[in-house]
Amino acid sequence: MVVYNFAAGPAMMPQPVVTQIQAELPSLGGSGMSIMEVSHRAAAFGVIINQAETRLRTLMAIPDDYAVLFMQGGGTGQFAAAPLNLATNHRRIAVLDSGQWASRAAGEAARLGVAADVLATTKNAHYRHLPPLPPIAAATYDYLHLCINNTVEGTTYHHLPDAGSTPIVGDMSSNILAEQYHVRDFGLIFAGAQKNLGPAGVTVVIVRREWLHAVTAVPSMLDYRLFDQKKSLYNTPPVFAIYALNLVLQWVQEQGGVAEMQRRNEIKAKKLYAFLDESPVFANLVAKADRSLTNVVFNTGSEALDQAVVAQAAAHGLMNLKGHRSVGGLRASLYNAMPLAGVDALIDFLHDFEKHL
Amino acid sequence: MVVYNFAAGPAMMPQPVVTQIQAELPSLGGSGMSIMEVSHRAAAFGVIINQAETRLRTLMAIPDDYAVLFMQGGGTGQFAAAPLNLATNHRRIAVLDSGQWASRAAGEAARLGVAADVLATTKNAHYRHLPPLPPIAAATYDYLHLCINNTVEGTTYHHLPDAGSTPIVGDMSSNILAEQYHVRDFGLIFAGAQKNLGPAGVTVVIVRREWLHAVTAVPSMLDYRLFDQKKSLYNTPPVFAIYALNLVLQWVQEQGGVAEMQRRNEIKAKKLYAFLDESPVFANLVAKADRSLTNVVFNTGSEALDQAVVAQAAAHGLMNLKGHRSVGGLRASLYNAMPLAGVDALIDFLHDFEKHL
Repeated sequence: MVVYNFAAGPAMMPQPVVTQIQAELPSLGGSGMSIMEVSHRAAAFGVIINQAETRLRTLMAIPDDYAVLFMQGGGTGQFAAAPLNLATNHRRIAVLDSGQWASRAAGEAARLGVAADVLATTKNAHYRHLPPLPPIAAATYDYLHLCINNTVEGTTYHHLPDAGSTPIVGDMSSNILAEQYHVRDFGLIFAGAQKNLGPAGVTVVIVRREWLHAVTAVPSMLDYRLFDQKKSLYNTPPVFAIYALNLVLQWVQEQGGVAEMQRRNEIKAKKLYAFLDESPVFANLVAKADRSLTNVVFNTGSEALDQAVVAQAAAHGLMNLKGHRSVGGLRASLYNAMPLAGVDALIDFLHDFEKHL
Repeated sequence: MVVYNFAAGPAMMPQPVVTQIQAELPSLGGSGMSIMEVSHRAAAFGVIINQAETRLRTLMAIPDDYAVLFMQGGGTGQFAAAPLNLATNHRRIAVLDSGQWASRAAGEAARLGVAADVLATTKNAHYRHLPPLPPIAAATYDYLHLCINNTVEGTTYHHLPDAGSTPIVGDMSSNILAEQYHVRDFGLIFAGAQKNLGPAGVTVVIVRREWLHAVTAVPSMLDYRLFDQKKSLYNTPPVFAIYALNLVLQWVQEQGGVAEMQRRNEIKAKKLYAFLDESPVFANLVAKADRSLTNVVFNTGSEALDQAVVAQAAAHGLMNLKGHRSVGGLRASLYNAMPLAGVDALIDFLHDFEKHL
C-alpha cells in the first residue's frame, strides 16, 4: 500500500532523499564511515554544510549581508534567541496574535523579560482570519514578530503587513521553501527543519548581519553573532540533520526551486480547498485570502465523525489527518514532499467517505 | 578495506546499529514512513523515547528520584542550562579546571552572571594530571562542576573527589556508558550523544528531581523542570537522534551492559597504553592514575612526524588520529563501539611505523 503522510511535522520527506540517505548510510562517499560517524570538523562535513548554505542562499535569493545559521532547538529555541539577541534596545516587541505559535513566541519573550505587546488578535474569531496590523509608532519596538504560516490554524501571511521601519521577525517553520518571500522584507527568518527542510533537529536562521551585535547574559547556543562568527560550528552541530537538509535542498533545486514548489503547492491546495468548499460534510472555515498552502484544516462538525475519518483514512494509507490536539478536527499538511497524487487520494477517500454516510 | 574511526566525536557507532538503521530507514516497523518522517506525538515514537529512558535507567541504575531528559544543544547547551537552573541560591559554582571543557563550562557560567570559582587547575602541567580538590566550605557553592572525562587532554576522574555536601555536576559526554559510576554521587550528569550514545543532536541529562524548581528568565529549551514535566516533549525533539540513541542503548544491553563495556574498554586502553609506554617513538604523558579509557592522547614530539602518522594511518583505514586542534599531537578515541581489533590494528600500524623510521 502506498502511504501518504499528512503529518504537520515531523513530516513527509521527498522519497528520493530518503532513498539516497538509505543507500549511503553505511559509507558516506565510500569513506567506510556513516554520516552519523563523521566529525563536524572533517573535510567531508565542511563540504556538506557549505553546500547547504549555498543552496539555501540560491533557493531563497538570500542577500550577502544576511547570515545563514544552522542552530538547534527548533522554533521554540528561536522564540528565546530572537528577543535575547535583538530586543536589546527597546526591550519590547510587537506581536500579531495569529494563533498558538505566535502566542507562544510572545510568552517566551515575556518570560525572558522582554515586553511583548500583542497589537491585534483574532483569537475570538478562532483565528480563522489573520489579525490586521494597526499603525506602529517608529522606534517603539525592536521588532514585529509574525508567524508567517500558522500550522495549527491553517492561515498564512501571503503578503506581509506594512510595519514601517520596524523590522519583521518571521517564523517560517511551516512554509519555508513552500512559497516565495523576499528575504529583504525581514530582519530575521527562522524555521525548524521538520516540515519542508528535512528531519527534526536543525533550525535554519537567516538574519541581517548588520542587526547582530555583542550580547551579554545570552547562552552561547542562542547567540546569533557567535554562530555567525563560528559558521555554525561553535560546538558539535546536528551533523545528520544538516546532511539530510542539504539533500532536501538539492531536491528542491532539482525540482525547479521555490517558484516551482509554490506552483505545485497552489495546485494541491486549490484542489483540496475546492473539494472542501463543495462538500456537504467537510468544511474549511478559514478566510479565503488567508488560507494556508501547507496546512489545510477542516472538519465535519462532529468529533466522532472526525475520528472516524482519521481511522478509516489510516486504513487506506492516508496517515496523520488528526488536527492539532489544541483545536481538534482534521488537518492535511501538504508540504513540498507531498505529491499531487497524495492529495488526489485524499480527496477520493473523503468523497467516498461522505457518499457512504 | 576495514575502516576504524578513532574520531573523538561524532564517533564510531556500533556496526549492527548502523545496519539496523539502514535496513528500516524507509519504513519504520513496516509503517511505510521513515523514522525521519514520524511525528514526535505518534505512538510509535512514544514507544521509542520510553524505551530509551528505560534502557538508560537500567544501564546506569538511575534511581527513580532522578529525571532523565533528552535535550538539544550538547555539552555547551548544558554549560548554560546547569547554572541557569541550579546556581540560583549562591549564584556561585566551583570548578576544577581539568582542561578545555571544564574551562569552557566555567566561562559559560560567568557569561550568564554566575560566579565560577576555579578551585584548582593543572593548566601549568599541560593538564597531564587532574587537579586535586581543596576542602570546600559548605553552603558556598551551588555545585561543583567536574568534567569527568577530558576528551582533549586524555584524563578521567575514575574516582570522584569528595565535595562534601556540595552537589557534583558531571560532564560525562565522553565516557558515559564506557565506565561505571554511581548516579547518586551526582546531582546532575549530562552527556552529548555523539561519542558513546549515538549521532550528534541529542543530549542526555540525568538530574535529581528534588533539585529542580521553577526558574525565571531561563529559555524554555534549557528549563530542566519544564522538560521533566513535559517528558522531553515540550516541543519537537530530535526524533531521529533519539531513535538512534535507543538502538545504541539496546546494543549496550545486548553486549552485557556498562560493566562489560568497562571491561572491554580497560583491555583496549591497557593494550594501547602498554604499547605507548614501551615505544621509543610514541609517548603518552598523562599521569597513569588519571589516564582516560576513552581518549588516548600521544605524540612523537615532532609535529611533522605526528602529521605523517595521521596521513599514513588514514591510508591504512585508521582514521582521524589527529589530536584536538588546540593541543596537536595524536589521539585515539576508543569508545564503546571501537572493537579490540581496531586497537590491535592501530598498534600494529604504529609499531610498523616506528620500525621504518
